[in-house]
Amino acid sequence: MAIKPAIPKGTRDFGPKEVHRRQFILNTIRETFEQYGFQPIETPAMENMSTLTGKYGEEGDKLLFRILNSGDYLSKADQQALADQDSNALATSIAEKGLRYDLTIPFARFVVQHQNDITFPFRRYQMQPVWRADRPQKGRYREFWQCDADVIGSDSLVSEVELVEIYLRVFEKLGIPVTVRLNNRKLLEGLAEVIGAKDRFGDITTALDKLDKIGWDGVSDDMANRGMNDQTIKQLRSIMEDAGNKLEEWKEAWKNSEKGTMGWSELNTVFELLTSEDTENTVFDPTLARGLDYYTGTILEVTAKKVDMGSIGGGGRYDNLTGVFGLEGISGVGISFGLDRIYDVLEEMDGFPEQATKGTEALFIRFEDAPLNKLMEMVRTARNHNVRSELYPDAVKLKKQFKYADQNNIPWVVTAGPEELANNQVGLKNMVTGEQQTLTLPEALAQIEKNREASK
Amino acid sequence: MAIKPAIPKGTRDFGPKEVHRRQFILNTIRETFEQYGFQPIETPAMENMSTLTGKYGEEGDKLLFRILNSGDYLSKADQQALADQDSNALATSIAEKGLRYDLTIPFARFVVQHQNDITFPFRRYQMQPVWRADRPQKGRYREFWQCDADVIGSDSLVSEVELVEIYLRVFEKLGIPVTVRLNNRKLLEGLAEVIGAKDRFGDITTALDKLDKIGWDGVSDDMANRGMNDQTIKQLRSIMEDAGNKLEEWKEAWKNSEKGTMGWSELNTVFELLTSEDTENTVFDPTLARGLDYYTGTILEVTAKKVDMGSIGGGGRYDNLTGVFGLEGISGVGISFGLDRIYDVLEEMDGFPEQATKGTEALFIRFEDAPLNKLMEMVRTARNHNVRSELYPDAVKLKKQFKYADQNNIPWVVTAGPEELANNQVGLKNMVTGEQQTLTLPEALAQIEKNREASK
Repeated sequence: MAIKPAIPKGTRDFGPKEVHRRQFILNTIRETFEQYGFQPIETPAMENMSTLTGKYGEEGDKLLFRILNSGDYLSKADQQALADQDSNALATSIAEKGLRYDLTIPFARFVVQHQNDITFPFRRYQMQPVWRADRPQKGRYREFWQCDADVIGSDSLVSEVELVEIYLRVFEKLGIPVTVRLNNRKLLEGLAEVIGAKDRFGDITTALDKLDKIGWDGVSDDMANRGMNDQTIKQLRSIMEDAGNKLEEWKEAWKNSEKGTMGWSELNTVFELLTSEDTENTVFDPTLARGLDYYTGTILEVTAKKVDMGSIGGGGRYDNLTGVFGLEGISGVGISFGLDRIYDVLEEMDGFPEQATKGTEALFIRFEDAPLNKLMEMVRTARNHNVRSELYPDAVKLKKQFKYADQNNIPWVVTAGPEELANNQVGLKNMVTGEQQTLTLPEALAQIEKNREASK
Repeated sequence: MAIKPAIPKGTRDFGPKEVHRRQFILNTIRETFEQYGFQPIETPAMENMSTLTGKYGEEGDKLLFRILNSGDYLSKADQQALADQDSNALATSIAEKGLRYDLTIPFARFVVQHQNDITFPFRRYQMQPVWRADRPQKGRYREFWQCDADVIGSDSLVSEVELVEIYLRVFEKLGIPVTVRLNNRKLLEGLAEVIGAKDRFGDITTALDKLDKIGWDGVSDDMANRGMNDQTIKQLRSIMEDAGNKLEEWKEAWKNSEKGTMGWSELNTVFELLTSEDTENTVFDPTLARGLDYYTGTILEVTAKKVDMGSIGGGGRYDNLTGVFGLEGISGVGISFGLDRIYDVLEEMDGFPEQATKGTEALFIRFEDAPLNKLMEMVRTARNHNVRSELYPDAVKLKKQFKYADQNNIPWVVTAGPEELANNQVGLKNMVTGEQQTLTLPEALAQIEKNREASK
């Protein structure tokens, strides 16, 4: 009895076209990271659960994929948890490893573990899949890729500027018009201070984080539900609506808050150091909050201008990411690209360039009555000339072989039957235009290369 | 209390140098696969356990990493297994997914699942990590990469020839002299037939598989232990030692076995279709057996000539890989590269080219008294000229900045203090030779590019 083949929900298979396109995005990001002096690291898919738990909040912990211990795992299981049938408590004793949930915590773990081999500031990038046991839905997967770049061990704002530039350069290369939105957590702390709600900073950021989804009325309700009084909420809203995204006006509002002034000054420096061209696509957005607890300074997000897809990247500065692993006081700043969302944006824009696909360029037809070694020699010649080529392996009907070329989007078909071979020639068919030529093999290869260059 | 950071045993972190070198190997393999018309696919890290179990033998099943179901997994657990504290039986009900163990079974599953979207013959390649709960030891890891290429849906021997060529081309490009060893399972079946031990085919291949490790005496003992009689074992050994690896002599020995003759003829065709140059590094090895059950025709393995590392790649033809998922009678042939072993071979040969490392080429020194925006402009110019560059983010002591360049193997340092800036010049220091020059920035960049080209 055969098993009906399927894959776990929330995961995906990728066919050739998708892999080529994903590689195109990954290569573009990688090239830019390297142009900016970032160096790659890779960490294992599995981390010890002790590294992962408690880092992503209670909700995050539930989304960790745990790996069952090998062998007779029950022999070392927590007997009390077993007796209580307590899934959570038992898991701790029977599943000591888990799949990485993001690249940030493994990076912090890496920095602490290898601190003696690292020269700080450390500019690292990392492009790997992560796994989350989230409820699968459109655009949300259980396995997806992140591409992160971080500078750790320096609090210079030069890094912030460079990370904004990286966002803009990558999306320029990908042909996606974007806006980078910038804010600073200190500015938000100052806001809480100014309205006399310093202890409400967490509630304020959590509520603000939803502004673009639920609007000001929703955010006000949310804050009220969190026990903030009406007066304070109104004050907050009026400050934000009055000043809007004009950074200059915020300076005045914040003058009585040390934190706020510091945040304002940091943001202002970043804008000053950006080229005037880049500031056209970079905006100050006081409502940007970023949910994550570990951000302490600059925060940023990227959105595509023409496609409604939410954030396609984000990041920020943190003052103590490695503290949880015992290395205190190391400041860093980082950004992340979401490969899967960028893919969806490019697809919606019909924006993948043709060269993103590195499929076969020439199919050599296998003729029953042409000597096989002669045909193979021709294919070898083509490959030596860097024309991606294949020989149809079986001497089946021509129609079937041409159909194969057609269905695999192979742009050229080379025919070398006994007659052509006798004249030292080949037939070259352009599968797009239908045009046919009789040429020598070197001429045919030159023709293919010429067309490839012209289409770039 | 800080957690002492560590990673699960058998897994590894990779720093910048290692990632660059691994990418160099992966890119070389990928380029060659594509040159030969192979198309990439990717499958999820997690597969359903029903896809994985029973495919790798009893031992293999034990090496599968299983993923604990999310949520209250005990509520759906097998109560009998729980009561019996039977780890194995319980696992089936609480861990329905597992990490992929190789790329072959996921490929078979992919082909069957997507058969209506695939035009056969399907030439696919796949380069992804796999996981095995093996006892970690030198050169054996719990997470490692495989790079596979297969042609499925054709029984043409053209594919065998091309796969041998791919092995030779990839290792040529990597600078690793190798020998490809070829055999055919039908030839071994014929051998069992000729010595009247047709029913012992499994025992014979399993024993032969160890020949290079334990020698003929060991293999003879092993076969005796499996209950084969002395006479048969002696006959087997004498045939193999007499004919050795001279394919022509085997023709005679096999003339009474239909299977053997078929295997001989297939092997002979492969050798005939190889170029004479390639046959110099390709040998017939009648003792090559390959343990895996699913091989039915050609089998092959690659070994490095100068480094004692065992096989660094292998593969073969299978007649019914997809049968277990319900698609019968599809013949295919494939090869696999072991990234980690190839890495170890190159390291032992000191064979990584310098260009394998794409580190920063130029560090721009940050001077306290040089305007920051001017320095950043220079770094931007360098990046626009495709010189991988960074600006030291903080205006710390020069000594510290130079040490950073040194420890990160950055070959050039650019100094632009107030004086140089006033003259529109920069200092360029070659960190390898110690040589210093004063130049304009474009001249400095040209110098860096010139040196880069010269070192290629």
